[in-house]
Amino acid sequence: MEVQQVVHMNGGVGDISYANNSSLQRTAIAKVRPIIEEAISSLYCVSFPKKITIADLGCSSGPNTFLVLSNIIDAVVMKCHQLNHPLPEFQMFLNDLPGNDFNTIFRYLLPSFYEKLNEKKGADLAQCFVAGVAGSFYGRLFPSKSLHFVHSSYSLHWLSQVPQGLQNEMGITLNKGNIYLAKTSPSSVFKAYLAEFQRDFSFFLKLRSEELIGGGRMVLTLHGRRSSYPYNRDCCWEPLAQALHDMVLQGVIEQEKVDSFNLPYYTPSIHELEAIIETEGSFSLDRLEIIDINWDGSEDAYEETSAFNNLASAQNVSKCIRAVSESMLASHFGEATIDDLFQKYEQNVVQFQSNGKRKYINLVICMTRKG
Amino acid sequence: MEVQQVVHMNGGVGDISYANNSSLQRTAIAKVRPIIEEAISSLYCVSFPKKITIADLGCSSGPNTFLVLSNIIDAVVMKCHQLNHPLPEFQMFLNDLPGNDFNTIFRYLLPSFYEKLNEKKGADLAQCFVAGVAGSFYGRLFPSKSLHFVHSSYSLHWLSQVPQGLQNEMGITLNKGNIYLAKTSPSSVFKAYLAEFQRDFSFFLKLRSEELIGGGRMVLTLHGRRSSYPYNRDCCWEPLAQALHDMVLQGVIEQEKVDSFNLPYYTPSIHELEAIIETEGSFSLDRLEIIDINWDGSEDAYEETSAFNNLASAQNVSKCIRAVSESMLASHFGEATIDDLFQKYEQNVVQFQSNGKRKYINLVICMTRKG
Repeated sequence: MEVQQVVHMNGGVGDISYANNSSLQRTAIAKVRPIIEEAISSLYCVSFPKKITIADLGCSSGPNTFLVLSNIIDAVVMKCHQLNHPLPEFQMFLNDLPGNDFNTIFRYLLPSFYEKLNEKKGADLAQCFVAGVAGSFYGRLFPSKSLHFVHSSYSLHWLSQVPQGLQNEMGITLNKGNIYLAKTSPSSVFKAYLAEFQRDFSFFLKLRSEELIGGGRMVLTLHGRRSSYPYNRDCCWEPLAQALHDMVLQGVIEQEKVDSFNLPYYTPSIHELEAIIETEGSFSLDRLEIIDINWDGSEDAYEETSAFNNLASAQNVSKCIRAVSESMLASHFGEATIDDLFQKYEQNVVQFQSNGKRKYINLVICMTRKG
Repeated sequence: MEVQQVVHMNGGVGDISYANNSSLQRTAIAKVRPIIEEAISSLYCVSFPKKITIADLGCSSGPNTFLVLSNIIDAVVMKCHQLNHPLPEFQMFLNDLPGNDFNTIFRYLLPSFYEKLNEKKGADLAQCFVAGVAGSFYGRLFPSKSLHFVHSSYSLHWLSQVPQGLQNEMGITLNKGNIYLAKTSPSSVFKAYLAEFQRDFSFFLKLRSEELIGGGRMVLTLHGRRSSYPYNRDCCWEPLAQALHDMVLQGVIEQEKVDSFNLPYYTPSIHELEAIIETEGSFSLDRLEIIDINWDGSEDAYEETSAFNNLASAQNVSKCIRAVSESMLASHFGEATIDDLFQKYEQNVVQFQSNGKRKYINLVICMTRKG
């Protein structure tokens, strides 16, 4: 499977967006809001740009697309009011893969964003200019030293490609029966995944360090894990692997098809992230937080999650996971399998959540471009 | 008819692009190339930006979309080589109305643009970053003093709206039977059209003067006319008005529908353009050229145009005019009329060209932002 094409630059139906899962991401964005405010506040302690240039990487095209930009504008406006400082002009770049639906952004989402902005801020607001940039963030997207602030939510756990080295010298797959890191994955598979993430994330930092001005800030949210142990029991792909396994038993999918499928996805530990940032060297790490969010995107507290509508929750989980993985799965296993696959997935999620809701571990990092 | 919505910001199927007519525009772009080269050359006489920021307003989404950007890059590369100067980074903004198909630009046109650029320039080329900006150029699109070079081709003869004052105090239409300035149009109609163009073009200059740096250049190509006499015998809308008239006689369209339709289009004279530029005051006019181009976009010399395939030519003319006007016509007269209308238009163009090809008069202006 040429996942690189699907994940990346092909421009087909496949590569819709890094982060096309609205309720879950909306919750994450809300929780990250204070961290963005702090980052903007600290940015404004050292400089007062007349024009502030902001990029949101992996913006998708849906109800969340302008949520982050609104939060960032709010944070700047608040800080400028505090400091009794005139508002800057905002130049905002929305980035996602070329397959993302920029027409929807420009025709339907942008007008209502401007409308809300005008209602809220009135004549008080300086001008805000939005542009779309299509391309992978594993490549340069902006001119040198042109950005003050970079944001990315729910995108950087997607690798640039399926890791190399998931087969042995005989060409035999090492991650048999799995589609991501699982309990039965050998350590060589973990090493291959970690190596790909290290390469990708380090390259991402290098690219952004070229685009950000010295002192510029970057806030990233991505799936991660708590322990250094590579397998995460709260892995949302496990019920999907089980569903695929069931379909193999039913003769709908060939075993070989499952064996050759591996997700270009990785959940780093805090220490792995810190090590990459330090080794790459362009950024100082200001803050790293762990935020748990229910698989279904709901905001129930831990205590309440024992009494919940498991089926409704599983339906939400399935919807989110389908949105981000359908194109990849369809191009490997065929369109015809998808409905059945996600019906099974939903049932498996109900099983998984029989003792309470499962949670994504989200790592939120705030960094400053050195120099 | 609320043409303002159709022409402008509605985001519906209507407002596809300012300049969606490829062969004709391609010819114009080729003829304007030396003027762009001169403008870039003179820009590089006074400054050597590390990053050159360029906007193409009314970029459309078709074979011509990247033609101008390529020509501008070529001109910069040529100048830098002459001066033995390192190449700048290119930040390029493609602008058109929100209804323009930016997905096609990003998915299909941009990758082949980058590919050709790499083939042509190799490692020699500094980075080139393309972004899409959706919005009317009769509004601010870019931050203050952020552009070095603005280009617009085949867009500025489109007004921001149908002129006010095309009815008398009794609500009776003054431009009866016409859809644009015609021989029978009264002088009040001409005055209304001129006033709208003056307002629009002056506002356009003011907006761009805010966005361009001092010394920044602007090259604009638009339909115009040679004489001060407001009616242009080479007006491409005349055969369309005739076609509509025929359909009224056939009972397919109501007379009132034709009377209430007026195109938001204007072809200024050189003196009108010069006067607006001088009165607005932000730009000095470096060069103004008149370039004649056949209605069908072909490049035959005058002498050859007596022996030509009239039908094939008329088909091309019809294709061009349909591309730019279909959405407006369909929303006013109904989708169902369009095929018949353009069949009649084609026949009328054959008549119009019975003594030789007709020509558009294109005005090309090169200006410098003062200060």
